Amino acid sequence: MSTPAVHPVEIPAVLARPPPVVRTKDVQGMPGTSLGLVFRVFQFVFAAISLSIMASTNDFPSVTAFCYLVAAVSLQSLWSLALAVVDIYALLVKRSLRNTSVVSLFAIGDGITSTLTFAAACASAGITVLIGNDLDKCDVNHCKRFMSATAMAFLSWVAVSPSFFLNFWSLASR
Amino acid sequence: MSTPAVHPVEIPAVLARPPPVVRTKDVQGMPGTSLGLVFRVFQFVFAAISLSIMASTNDFPSVTAFCYLVAAVSLQSLWSLALAVVDIYALLVKRSLRNTSVVSLFAIGDGITSTLTFAAACASAGITVLIGNDLDKCDVNHCKRFMSATAMAFLSWVAVSPSFFLNFWSLASR
Repeated sequence: MSTPAVHPVEIPAVLARPPPVVRTKDVQGMPGTSLGLVFRVFQFVFAAISLSIMASTNDFPSVTAFCYLVAAVSLQSLWSLALAVVDIYALLVKRSLRNTSVVSLFAIGDGITSTLTFAAACASAGITVLIGNDLDKCDVNHCKRFMSATAMAFLSWVAVSPSFFLNFWSLASR
Repeated sequence: MSTPAVHPVEIPAVLARPPPVVRTKDVQGMPGTSLGLVFRVFQFVFAAISLSIMASTNDFPSVTAFCYLVAAVSLQSLWSLALAVVDIYALLVKRSLRNTSVVSLFAIGDGITSTLTFAAACASAGITVLIGNDLDKCDVNHCKRFMSATAMAFLSWVAVSPSFFLNFWSLASR
């Protein structure tokens, strides 16, 4: 009668090594990628142009919405500049920024600044259209500058949206 | 000397049955859940109140932003009413609405209507603040009605946001 026997064997060296870490490739446009840096630069440039055009009019403090636009695009330009610096650092040292807490911080910050910028742009657009089309008082107001500042704020918002959605998407899909 | 032998055995009935389909539980607030229906009802009610308050003022057509608010909350109320009906149907027949194309349709629709409602609310808020605080002309305008309509539009947007983010999240995490 035979009995089954278990012979302990040496683990081959190949199996003893930990398996290589499988890393999903960084999607272009995420923080720490060159397209992400391009988005940040566009956000900063548009917000800064909007800020300087609006600040160059002497009568913007008389309208609350224009003051709010100045505040919102200032915040947007500071945030985008800071993240552009982080992106440049990550690109220079070839470091990936795919860390849950970092990505969620970026997503929340992008969500807040983009909402503020969009709200300010909409409020300014409403007032610019009121002055220009409804009241027809462009002769005594800087309509063109108000329009340019509003348009630049909208463009800045358009440039923030992909950053926000990519961060949010990568948070949800991990 | 003994040789190993393989004796074919009958597969027990328990193993022959296909394994039960593992289904992730519907997150409350998603389409087809009772909390999702509550969100839809709130969206519809706030948008409808905003629409009726704004339409009750006789001078809203003279301001472009107020006309835009009327259009945006009309669209929002129709969209939310339609999805509320879909939710009621799904709850009655106990059907899950976790289908990629359905969820992406809902997410895109929610994204568009919520952006339009938010933009309209911001533009109206800018003009209401301009009339009330900056120009101090509340005696000749329906400031209170404009404010209420704007506030209701904002509340409608607040009620759409969770629907949009839950749909977007469930799209990304599948």
